[in-house]
Amino acid sequence: MSRFLNLRLERLLPYTPGEQPKIPGLIKLNPNESPYPPAPGVLDVINREEAAKLRLYSDPDATNLTAAIAAHYGVSPKQVVVGNGSDEILAFAFAAFFDPAEKLLFPDITYGFYPVFAEVFGLAPTVVPLKEDFTIDPSDYTGGNVVIANPNAPTGLALATSQIEEILKANPNHLVLVDEAYADFGENCSALPLLPKYENLLIVRTCSKSRSLAGARLGYAIGHESVVADLQKVRFSFNPYNVNRLTLLAGEASFADRAYFQSCIAKVKATRARLTEGLRALGFTVLDSQANFVFAAHPAETGATLLAKLRERRILVRHFAKPRIENFLRITVGTDEETDVLLAALADILKQRS
Amino acid sequence: MSRFLNLRLERLLPYTPGEQPKIPGLIKLNPNESPYPPAPGVLDVINREEAAKLRLYSDPDATNLTAAIAAHYGVSPKQVVVGNGSDEILAFAFAAFFDPAEKLLFPDITYGFYPVFAEVFGLAPTVVPLKEDFTIDPSDYTGGNVVIANPNAPTGLALATSQIEEILKANPNHLVLVDEAYADFGENCSALPLLPKYENLLIVRTCSKSRSLAGARLGYAIGHESVVADLQKVRFSFNPYNVNRLTLLAGEASFADRAYFQSCIAKVKATRARLTEGLRALGFTVLDSQANFVFAAHPAETGATLLAKLRERRILVRHFAKPRIENFLRITVGTDEETDVLLAALADILKQRS
Repeated sequence: MSRFLNLRLERLLPYTPGEQPKIPGLIKLNPNESPYPPAPGVLDVINREEAAKLRLYSDPDATNLTAAIAAHYGVSPKQVVVGNGSDEILAFAFAAFFDPAEKLLFPDITYGFYPVFAEVFGLAPTVVPLKEDFTIDPSDYTGGNVVIANPNAPTGLALATSQIEEILKANPNHLVLVDEAYADFGENCSALPLLPKYENLLIVRTCSKSRSLAGARLGYAIGHESVVADLQKVRFSFNPYNVNRLTLLAGEASFADRAYFQSCIAKVKATRARLTEGLRALGFTVLDSQANFVFAAHPAETGATLLAKLRERRILVRHFAKPRIENFLRITVGTDEETDVLLAALADILKQRS
Repeated sequence: MSRFLNLRLERLLPYTPGEQPKIPGLIKLNPNESPYPPAPGVLDVINREEAAKLRLYSDPDATNLTAAIAAHYGVSPKQVVVGNGSDEILAFAFAAFFDPAEKLLFPDITYGFYPVFAEVFGLAPTVVPLKEDFTIDPSDYTGGNVVIANPNAPTGLALATSQIEEILKANPNHLVLVDEAYADFGENCSALPLLPKYENLLIVRTCSKSRSLAGARLGYAIGHESVVADLQKVRFSFNPYNVNRLTLLAGEASFADRAYFQSCIAKVKATRARLTEGLRALGFTVLDSQANFVFAAHPAETGATLLAKLRERRILVRHFAKPRIENFLRITVGTDEETDVLLAALADILKQRS
């Protein structure tokens, strides 16, 4: 720490990203990336001609991409704002809508960035424990601004759309931010149908998972026009050119190909079912995932040990050394082949133990 | 404005980016973009293969790019931090180092984003008027944190390295942020040689101008290891994957080709001399620019009129409707051909007037 750092930030603990080691031949099932490449159209627009145009600024209004996203969801372009990944959108939303004088609620077990943003913006959040079965009780979220990841991470469990509506109804004068990073892999859980009815709903989404664009950095939020206008104001006060030229093009190309998008999701869902079944056959407890990962624990072996033993076999999964979930592994749904290798490795690890 | 917006942000006035109209055949001399494409190596790395890898996250440590930048400047990689454009780096620095309880000084005529960031982070800056001749008086900057664009924008005038040193010496317990967005086009003005001596120096740079990568969004800062560690902490608390995969590659390829970089700068400087001479021959007052733009006013015609008449001829330049500079135009140094078209247009506009 330098002697110039703001006192307020001294004790700030930054977010820890998933490990990104540069070891060849790794099976990376840790940061919930897609095992499939982006849509073929994305591959077409990343070329020398567009590289030459990098000398020019990107469109600060992201006009074409915003229109493509709006058309995809059947909303107005004024209801859409884009960001350099959904993390940036989340930061903008925390800055725009959450005030130290107001209550801010989110679960104890959820995306690790929420407490970091709360600290950055000087907020003292009310951290609500998940229920024993790791589900969220909507009735716990009243009297303040709310941040809910739905499906939640790292559990993969989702509230139904009707349960999100309960939270919106209970907090009419506060913003309810629903982080739908994984919602494309879920069923009947998205808050999108609630948009016309609730001004206090802000949905944050990412192209990192279901659109195979983690490395392009593209997120967006959808909400009421006035709420989105506020986010645009914050965006234009931080970084108006936040989305680069190539990512704008990649995003457009991705939204242009609905069939490819749906086929990738169908494949991930099928492999998720197979992975869940395989883990349960090995004796794992596996939560019912609506995301592109599963959350699983084995009664006979600790999470830390399984993590280490898988790593020896060049398989990376994610483990959180936190109370209640320390024996769980978060395992990204990869290809069927990767899933087979993982299940065989786990079977072998458990066999050697016994 | 929604009813959920933070009261503190209500009166926030966002930054206004340079106009980016989609009219074919425009001569864009407004947002200080480079007229030349990025280095040939950049064009090579933007391809289908890399597009397919967009499914994977970018390296949050930006290891290779950071090493390339450090090697270029002969500093340690621990002295370098990268951002999604230098605007993001500036925002991180304002968040990290400037406190409402401390004085913050910057000039009245300078990069328009500084007052916006000050507002965003709840700071009450001391705005110091430039001298009559639009130069900065280093002795005006004492007793607080300092932000100086050097060369300054939109004037194009630069302090000498020794004058920056005066400011560093006068504020040993405060941070002096020197925004060197345009320093590659200047002579003997960079603060880089002062880095080993001053812990309180932070240099912010961009690849948007001299490296023709405006649309890739890449900025970086160089400073003392402890100061950079603070910025990394803020970066990992906002957006650890802030630089996307393709921009990381583009940046590396740009820094790998020193000869191309130098040839572009030499061309811009030669055209700048020609543009300055041509404008002076037409009766313009032109400040001595050390940047990739010139700042010029004509005694016989207002800046607003010249702006409008140039726009009719599909030539875009930048104009700031601010006291003291309202008759100036900021004109980006384009190609020699664009400069000829501009000078002919101005000659014609002035002739029609007389």
